[in-house]
Amino acid sequence: MNKIKIAIIGYGNLGKGVEAGIRQNKDMELVGVFTRRDPSTIKTATAGVSAYYIDDAKNMTEQIDVMVLCGGSMSDLPEQGPHFATMFNTVDGYDNHAEIPDYFNAVNKSALAAGKVCVISSGWDPGLFSINRLYAEAILPGEITYTFWGKGISQGHSDAIRRINGVKDAKQYTIPLESAIDAVKKGETPELSAREKHKRVCYVVADEGADKEQIKNDIKTMPNYFSDYDTEVHFITEKELEMEHSGLPHGGLVIRYGKTGLNGEHNNTIEYKLNLDSNPEFTANVLLAYARAAYRLSKEGVSGAKTVADIAPAYLSIKSGEEIRKTII
Amino acid sequence: MNKIKIAIIGYGNLGKGVEAGIRQNKDMELVGVFTRRDPSTIKTATAGVSAYYIDDAKNMTEQIDVMVLCGGSMSDLPEQGPHFATMFNTVDGYDNHAEIPDYFNAVNKSALAAGKVCVISSGWDPGLFSINRLYAEAILPGEITYTFWGKGISQGHSDAIRRINGVKDAKQYTIPLESAIDAVKKGETPELSAREKHKRVCYVVADEGADKEQIKNDIKTMPNYFSDYDTEVHFITEKELEMEHSGLPHGGLVIRYGKTGLNGEHNNTIEYKLNLDSNPEFTANVLLAYARAAYRLSKEGVSGAKTVADIAPAYLSIKSGEEIRKTII
Repeated sequence: MNKIKIAIIGYGNLGKGVEAGIRQNKDMELVGVFTRRDPSTIKTATAGVSAYYIDDAKNMTEQIDVMVLCGGSMSDLPEQGPHFATMFNTVDGYDNHAEIPDYFNAVNKSALAAGKVCVISSGWDPGLFSINRLYAEAILPGEITYTFWGKGISQGHSDAIRRINGVKDAKQYTIPLESAIDAVKKGETPELSAREKHKRVCYVVADEGADKEQIKNDIKTMPNYFSDYDTEVHFITEKELEMEHSGLPHGGLVIRYGKTGLNGEHNNTIEYKLNLDSNPEFTANVLLAYARAAYRLSKEGVSGAKTVADIAPAYLSIKSGEEIRKTII
Repeated sequence: MNKIKIAIIGYGNLGKGVEAGIRQNKDMELVGVFTRRDPSTIKTATAGVSAYYIDDAKNMTEQIDVMVLCGGSMSDLPEQGPHFATMFNTVDGYDNHAEIPDYFNAVNKSALAAGKVCVISSGWDPGLFSINRLYAEAILPGEITYTFWGKGISQGHSDAIRRINGVKDAKQYTIPLESAIDAVKKGETPELSAREKHKRVCYVVADEGADKEQIKNDIKTMPNYFSDYDTEVHFITEKELEMEHSGLPHGGLVIRYGKTGLNGEHNNTIEYKLNLDSNPEFTANVLLAYARAAYRLSKEGVSGAKTVADIAPAYLSIKSGEEIRKTII
């Protein structure tokens, strides 16, 4: 089999997840990892695969079928997405929802000019959750789709706690409220405030002698991050944090309720739920399925930026159309 | 707005569901109902919309954008699917899983020759469940996807009970077993027998003076239908059956568990769950979303048979690509 040649830009949690995920896909191989760090300091987990300086990617366009962009959405992707779309088919998990239309346009311009296929925002939210919002809305028109996140670690909120005076380390879990989920399932189509949808639970390691009441207050009153939520703060030891909260679990639920019947007499709900031990590894696996799609679309002569909404499910599968009809449909 | 002109073949529960569903989609209008019955005996629920004899459809190809085929999969669709694909864009919910490859080929041949787009097997299973099996398998390779059905009424099993001597009427519910679902979620990837996945609960109205023990035994030992399951039989009155079991609820769950990480150290599950008060009305709404897709694909010059795997999610939505990126992704 002619394997799809994948390369990775950015070798953090997500990039390492892509490397691990490639081993699960027998039609793919990893050909290189690109980094802004000194590549000699990086040893990949894949035998025979080297790390390269990011600026050398432009000299390897012939060896790479799809470049998986694993940088951050805040500052890396807005620059790297449009840049690498000028020379590679790409896949990314750009997740700054409000900026997706602009990001799409910037990547699309490069991709069309270069004749490349570039799939943006293809993790799980945006990504799988987006598709499920779309399907559910098309099938049950007229009501609201609800998205809940968690139980899971929010990196941004954990970072915000760490910046507070007297905090040594911290992890923050976002937890969806069962009461809200139940109300949605019952068809009450409630208007839910931030506080009514999720609560925030924080595990904090305080510096020796720090004022814990002050820290607790600083967290609970922090605008945007915590003040709009019911927030629990638990002080634990550094060892407890390491032992019990070192993972990166996440997940969530997309749920839509809708009536059917001439008089709306029947209730129906659609639910899509993820429960993930490893947010970055699962996200990486989604990116790889869309890398397969980007490769195939490119082979068909397609070009431009695509979102998960633009790609038929069959493009993600290693199976042929015939096998899909026989074993999956 | 130029509305999509929909017509219906077959005016049973599913056809009536399509008629009701059209009212929820402001870009669609119903232009006719076709039937094998005497059309003068049928009054549609939509003002100004007539019923026609099925053979008259061929004279109305110019007035209809998409024909929604609402006949049964056993004997109607194998004939109607390939036939109407010679003159219309069509959508159906053909659900005889084992025969889908052959049915696809038959419809595809007609559709390609006629330059029409024909979406087959687009209800919820096959249909939405198929898509979810496909996405889940592509993203978490290497394990098994489990599908559970119910709690819901199985029409075929209810009919089988009604044919037993001494049975006046009956309804049969298929119920998934929580123990099996829990084992799958835990990542035990169990090999589940029919009995371990679902149980069957029967509500039976016996004829006056019938031998209830004999009926119970006849049900529980019926091959294929009941003998491989734990089956409960409850005798109730005709009135109770009418009051409590006259609906057509259904639903189910697609669930896939998969490991990620270099050493498979992380567990992840994807779940897709439907809970439907009305199986036919919900199925009808899915057919309508795919009718929109068929219409758009046809406008783009596409032709041939398609399954849900072949159609990008965006084609189902009333929203433009730009709106999708702004509000759904």
